[in-house]
Amino acid sequence: MTTFKSCPVRFRIMASWFRAGRCLVAKFGPSAVTPRALHSSRSLRNEAIDPRVWALGRLHHVGVAVPDVNAASKLYKETLAMGDKVSEVRSHPEHGIRCVFIDFGNSMLELIEPLGEASPLKGFIDRNKGGGLHHICLEVNDLDAAARQLSDLKIHLLSPKPRPGAHGKDVLFLHPKDCQGVLVELQQA
Amino acid sequence: MTTFKSCPVRFRIMASWFRAGRCLVAKFGPSAVTPRALHSSRSLRNEAIDPRVWALGRLHHVGVAVPDVNAASKLYKETLAMGDKVSEVRSHPEHGIRCVFIDFGNSMLELIEPLGEASPLKGFIDRNKGGGLHHICLEVNDLDAAARQLSDLKIHLLSPKPRPGAHGKDVLFLHPKDCQGVLVELQQA
Repeated sequence: MTTFKSCPVRFRIMASWFRAGRCLVAKFGPSAVTPRALHSSRSLRNEAIDPRVWALGRLHHVGVAVPDVNAASKLYKETLAMGDKVSEVRSHPEHGIRCVFIDFGNSMLELIEPLGEASPLKGFIDRNKGGGLHHICLEVNDLDAAARQLSDLKIHLLSPKPRPGAHGKDVLFLHPKDCQGVLVELQQA
Repeated sequence: MTTFKSCPVRFRIMASWFRAGRCLVAKFGPSAVTPRALHSSRSLRNEAIDPRVWALGRLHHVGVAVPDVNAASKLYKETLAMGDKVSEVRSHPEHGIRCVFIDFGNSMLELIEPLGEASPLKGFIDRNKGGGLHHICLEVNDLDAAARQLSDLKIHLLSPKPRPGAHGKDVLFLHPKDCQGVLVELQQA
């Protein structure tokens, strides 16, 4: 008698696909096996069956690109009376920035000035002379898993894998074109 | 005998200025009474003598202007798996916006879509078709006092007095040109 295990591998794979298709139809109706739904079947599976292995956490900080971090620091320290909630200026030549943090208790602003000609911020400040909102940074409990899954979901990552960020933790940037024009930094919590 | 109280008012005012000047010189040295220092004497007095009567609090939310709030909501709800942390869409025709809130626990994102031809967001979306970071909202413990003092300090306010915002609390916007290109919303805590 021909058993499932004795079938050639390619037929067993096709049978698995067929069974998966029947499960999707049973759970979500015939539209679940349209080409579009099959394209995003990983997302469907994750919502319906598999628990997500990573999750977003807190809004760690908002990045503000500025032409002069000392002047920007003064606005928050003096005019807006934040005083000792404003950090000293820190230089990160390896990231091409000088930065200051402003601690609002629940979250932070990161004022960042380009450092050097090769700074990744230089283009932004060339286009926005006075400065402007640059990115948001969200914490993630498993950055490697997030990188893998978001890449599978066709979200463009600015680097293929997480890299050390300016705060000593690994970070990953999502392309603004996939996030409503917002540069999203994910940081390992 | 000529007493202080019997002097004409203008001399009493001049004497007060002179005493204030001597106090500043005693505390900060001669540079405290240069024209520039006198111009900002209100700020000096506030730091040195008078306690500030208002203070910034938490980072309440970050505003993201989007062309389609339903599509933007889907990114956070499904792809970034925020699920029930993403609110329903709310319409505020009186403010010319439709919005969705995403709750990160410590702070929020506000996704805002222009509603109607007169929406204050329309120009931003015309310039940034795909959307983008629009403003930050900071809590303040006394918004009326902040409005008076920031106006005195030559920070441009987009309205002369606080007005009801989309969240049922009074708000005030500071002009980006005075805040490193960032539109800052202050909200009564």
